Amino acid sequence: MFQLLATDGSTLARRGRLTTRHGVVETPVFMPVGTQGSVKSVHPDELESLDTQIILGNTYHLFIRPGVEIVRDQGGLHRFMNWQRPILTDSGGYQVFSLAKLRQITEEGVHFQSHLDGSAMFIGPETAMEIQAGLGSDIAMLFDECPHYPCAREYASRSLDLTLRWAARCRNWIDAHRPDGQHHFGIIQGSVYPDLRQKSARALVEMGFDGYAVGGLSVGEPEEEMIRAVEHSVPALPEDRPRYAMGLGTPPQLLEMIARGIDMFDCVLPTRVARNGTAYTADGPLNLRNNRFENDSSPLSEDTAPSCRGFSRAYIRHLLKSGEILGLRLVTLHNLHFYLNLMNSARCAIENGTFAEFKAAFISRYLEKQQVT
Amino acid sequence: MFQLLATDGSTLARRGRLTTRHGVVETPVFMPVGTQGSVKSVHPDELESLDTQIILGNTYHLFIRPGVEIVRDQGGLHRFMNWQRPILTDSGGYQVFSLAKLRQITEEGVHFQSHLDGSAMFIGPETAMEIQAGLGSDIAMLFDECPHYPCAREYASRSLDLTLRWAARCRNWIDAHRPDGQHHFGIIQGSVYPDLRQKSARALVEMGFDGYAVGGLSVGEPEEEMIRAVEHSVPALPEDRPRYAMGLGTPPQLLEMIARGIDMFDCVLPTRVARNGTAYTADGPLNLRNNRFENDSSPLSEDTAPSCRGFSRAYIRHLLKSGEILGLRLVTLHNLHFYLNLMNSARCAIENGTFAEFKAAFISRYLEKQQVT
Repeated sequence: MFQLLATDGSTLARRGRLTTRHGVVETPVFMPVGTQGSVKSVHPDELESLDTQIILGNTYHLFIRPGVEIVRDQGGLHRFMNWQRPILTDSGGYQVFSLAKLRQITEEGVHFQSHLDGSAMFIGPETAMEIQAGLGSDIAMLFDECPHYPCAREYASRSLDLTLRWAARCRNWIDAHRPDGQHHFGIIQGSVYPDLRQKSARALVEMGFDGYAVGGLSVGEPEEEMIRAVEHSVPALPEDRPRYAMGLGTPPQLLEMIARGIDMFDCVLPTRVARNGTAYTADGPLNLRNNRFENDSSPLSEDTAPSCRGFSRAYIRHLLKSGEILGLRLVTLHNLHFYLNLMNSARCAIENGTFAEFKAAFISRYLEKQQVT
Repeated sequence: MFQLLATDGSTLARRGRLTTRHGVVETPVFMPVGTQGSVKSVHPDELESLDTQIILGNTYHLFIRPGVEIVRDQGGLHRFMNWQRPILTDSGGYQVFSLAKLRQITEEGVHFQSHLDGSAMFIGPETAMEIQAGLGSDIAMLFDECPHYPCAREYASRSLDLTLRWAARCRNWIDAHRPDGQHHFGIIQGSVYPDLRQKSARALVEMGFDGYAVGGLSVGEPEEEMIRAVEHSVPALPEDRPRYAMGLGTPPQLLEMIARGIDMFDCVLPTRVARNGTAYTADGPLNLRNNRFENDSSPLSEDTAPSCRGFSRAYIRHLLKSGEILGLRLVTLHNLHFYLNLMNSARCAIENGTFAEFKAAFISRYLEKQQVT
């Protein structure tokens, strides 16, 4: 399912190809986030025009609304969303810990109240796998506990042991049910503790999954801790399986992670900051609400998305200031294009053996201009 | 500029062709409303895909934000919005009376406070024409006073006299400045009083404009009054000029107006109700938020817009309930398609001499099912 096409000489960057039942994914890849069955404000035809290869769906959100029965009745998540390319679903673990109310963790799983109406719900390892099989995603994530940051070593260690027992139960469920063509990725936890990260990675590899994710990132830790967590996890992982850093990151962070051997990313940043009027460019982010764009006839950037061409910064600023949906739509498309295009450039650079130079030049320009403006 | 291609045998319906400097408009025509320089939630490429021939822009809104100077600096409203087909701008009259605060009507024009920040502003007949020349619209509307409903005869009469004196000043401004290629339409007022409507129409025709609009409609009057106001205005209008009923209406109302000799319409209904989850169909409007659509796999309608095909009512309901922008986008596209398609069918029916039957069949089906559901 995963073919390693090229590796970089001076970093751990990899160029790979992941095969799923809804098509092939060229890595490194960025997955736009479709939390509630929709990448916010974007039509699936637009995602295709942007050359989006794979998107992420959120099990927790779809579980509480509209409910997995409806998605299944409607022919699965692909048909429900009218999206024919691959989908990865998370297991709901992260949202249970970040969004749900009154959660109670037991050996069996997690009891919680829906953040929408407070109704009592439960997700455990088997439920998480059942839901994702019902959604029909191409890649399903194992159910894990995601500890907060900072996290005392004792809690992190006990939490990791629980996550590993849950992983074994997921493994059993998968072996018993073998959902047709679905891949399953384990999630490495262990907070900031190198030995726990290593233990987690080794135990998951021992059980054997189709891919491995580094979880528990982007929960408030400094960037160095985020990078170290990946550095401590990756060495224990096999070369022939895809590696996914969950919930990351800024454009420079993505390149740092690729240089450390990561193949897959998802992040709400490009869509979320777009709704506040922030556009990514090679010279750093621009806040389009700024007065200096009031009469600026230039486009968002020279290499903006095809559907953003022909619109000036002045116009997009006017739309944002006026609360017009087209404004956030255009910035969302621009930002997704920027992230997807960054991954495309990274793939080319790895193939050409120039990834280290590409990364250094990109980060230098991205951060330099940011400081002057 | 206006060519009468066919007239209906049994009604006053007309099939015409209006030529503007940004292209030809086949009538009867519906103009989607782009209040603040954007048809809410819709990309101009999507408007083109829907075969939108002409859109409406609001002078009042663009005057207070971003200001006419910025639109002019950015190359005019077409270039600002990235829309290359015709644009009609209203004069701001209606919004000054419906939105602005602390307005004071003088012979000179209207002093008012912006509804956004309370700043003091003025629009008079000459200003309204100047602004619209600056926006560069293809069709500019004269500045008028739009009386409320109900309106005492004495007020309606005095208001009409003021509107006619303003029309004469607009005529003088146009003759003095001759904005390149712009057409100018007079607006008939007179509230519900037949003789005032006739007087208004005759006086405007005497001054001579490129087209004539029936204004002061959709201000709270019953449907019969709305229809009568048109019936009292139209007979005084020349055959060889387009006729525009401002701010209308429901699908059956549009057909009633076409049958009474109207060629052009604009209305916020298809875009506004879409944002509340209401979709127009040949069997009447559907409220997609209704529980009965929870697991409904059928499309919005069999003949929905191309970009809405492949999405079930269940999915669109889920998006609307979840506050996802894609939900209101899809219903907006569907409703615009419905309105534009209705006009297309009306044009064909007039050409084929079957308009009366088409209208009767459409209205009967539209209202019949509405009563059972």
